[in-house]
Amino acid sequence: MKSVINTIYESKLAELKDKIETLSTPVQLTIVTVGEDPASKVYVRNKIRLFDELGLECHHIVLAEEGTSQSDLDMLAEKAEHPILFQLPLPSGLIAPDLPAAVDVDGFGSEALGHLVLGQNAVLPCTVQATIDIITAHCGEYNFPGLKVAVVGRSNIVGKPLAIELINRQSTVASFNSRSDLVAVDWNKYDVIVVATGAHGILDNSQFIEGQLIIDVGINRVDGKLVGDIKHHDGIFSEAAITPVPGGVGRLTCLHVLGNVIKLADCSR
Amino acid sequence: MKSVINTIYESKLAELKDKIETLSTPVQLTIVTVGEDPASKVYVRNKIRLFDELGLECHHIVLAEEGTSQSDLDMLAEKAEHPILFQLPLPSGLIAPDLPAAVDVDGFGSEALGHLVLGQNAVLPCTVQATIDIITAHCGEYNFPGLKVAVVGRSNIVGKPLAIELINRQSTVASFNSRSDLVAVDWNKYDVIVVATGAHGILDNSQFIEGQLIIDVGINRVDGKLVGDIKHHDGIFSEAAITPVPGGVGRLTCLHVLGNVIKLADCSR
Repeated sequence: MKSVINTIYESKLAELKDKIETLSTPVQLTIVTVGEDPASKVYVRNKIRLFDELGLECHHIVLAEEGTSQSDLDMLAEKAEHPILFQLPLPSGLIAPDLPAAVDVDGFGSEALGHLVLGQNAVLPCTVQATIDIITAHCGEYNFPGLKVAVVGRSNIVGKPLAIELINRQSTVASFNSRSDLVAVDWNKYDVIVVATGAHGILDNSQFIEGQLIIDVGINRVDGKLVGDIKHHDGIFSEAAITPVPGGVGRLTCLHVLGNVIKLADCSR
Repeated sequence: MKSVINTIYESKLAELKDKIETLSTPVQLTIVTVGEDPASKVYVRNKIRLFDELGLECHHIVLAEEGTSQSDLDMLAEKAEHPILFQLPLPSGLIAPDLPAAVDVDGFGSEALGHLVLGQNAVLPCTVQATIDIITAHCGEYNFPGLKVAVVGRSNIVGKPLAIELINRQSTVASFNSRSDLVAVDWNKYDVIVVATGAHGILDNSQFIEGQLIIDVGINRVDGKLVGDIKHHDGIFSEAAITPVPGGVGRLTCLHVLGNVIKLADCSR
């Protein structure tokens, strides 16, 4: 599975590089972080490194947790003329501003999500786009219609927009959440299972079978180690393809930040 | 089932009348129709009648099919200061303008749908709200979490927003469409099945069992008679509760046009 992810990464990166060549507008991104969240720092560093490698502008606005108010964030959002993102998680009491679609790199704002519902070529949240890429690589670009996909988790940034995008693509979509009776579900009848709950062990590798694609979106820290939402029991020989954590969805997500910046630059022409 | 619908209708109407009393802003609606679609005429007449009965203002703008352009509709949308709706279906070549949420009675616009995805107390499309009412009456207001609901159909005005609203309510939601293998589905495992495809006979009354709630959203004309999406075979004794067509969802939908106008008036205070 790691090599599949690598292949997707390389081909996507090449595609984005080609696209940048054709753009007349400059590709630039502003990242806003508040406070000292260690996970945030890693995510932001990866994004900045990618932009640096490609010689693209990436501004990083660092705000101290103390003294930063919601109106400071709202002001930055209002003044934004170029693609911008507010790195999550934000300190408690602060929420990411509802960005207009034209500068909304993450696609988390209501305008981008409204366009998504209507199937209007919206900027997809990066994790959603990475998940779609993996399904495309595994199942084929034209095989979304009728594909049976289970989406476990209903967050505003992954589960819900992913379910909507899959419905747009005419897949048969089942959406599960923490109130679903997961024990009673016959997981084997799905072609693809996407797990995005943030709860390690919500499903395990003994529950899947040959031919299934399992996409593990979770990133959890257990005993100091990064693990996904799926628990991997030793000694279980499952032929299901399960994306690794780390090095799976997360590896592609960073690329889609760039992809979305390019898309927004392209639309602004 | 007819009596359940009547009870919901009466209690909702009483609730809305009470609400109108508390409003300081006037309740008024503008309906725009283009051309002479006979179904549209019936829908519009019902809405106007309801507003008349309650002594509320309802303006009806009637445009001829010939000579009406998209920019005429867009102009009306831009100038709208009060709740407005463009009655569907519109003649081919015309689309309903993407209304700002503040005047979007139908909740079909991208802004209202974006708010819906984020669970921000959005105006729900009237048919979605009517469906939610029927589920509430049958299953209980607090029993949405974990409820197993199948939604057949993925239109922008019913199936998709309904699936999103049910996900918001923590139901376990399965979304089917014309590319789904409906024959292979075990319908009996769902608590509620909502059928909104516009294809009469896509499911039939032999497929349901005691204890299930079946909501038929379709309105089709077959041999001059109004029928739903569900085919009713004679001699089948199904204890499943199936909403009738006509007199089911459609009867409640009209009420929610008023409900949404009230909600918008309330928000504008």
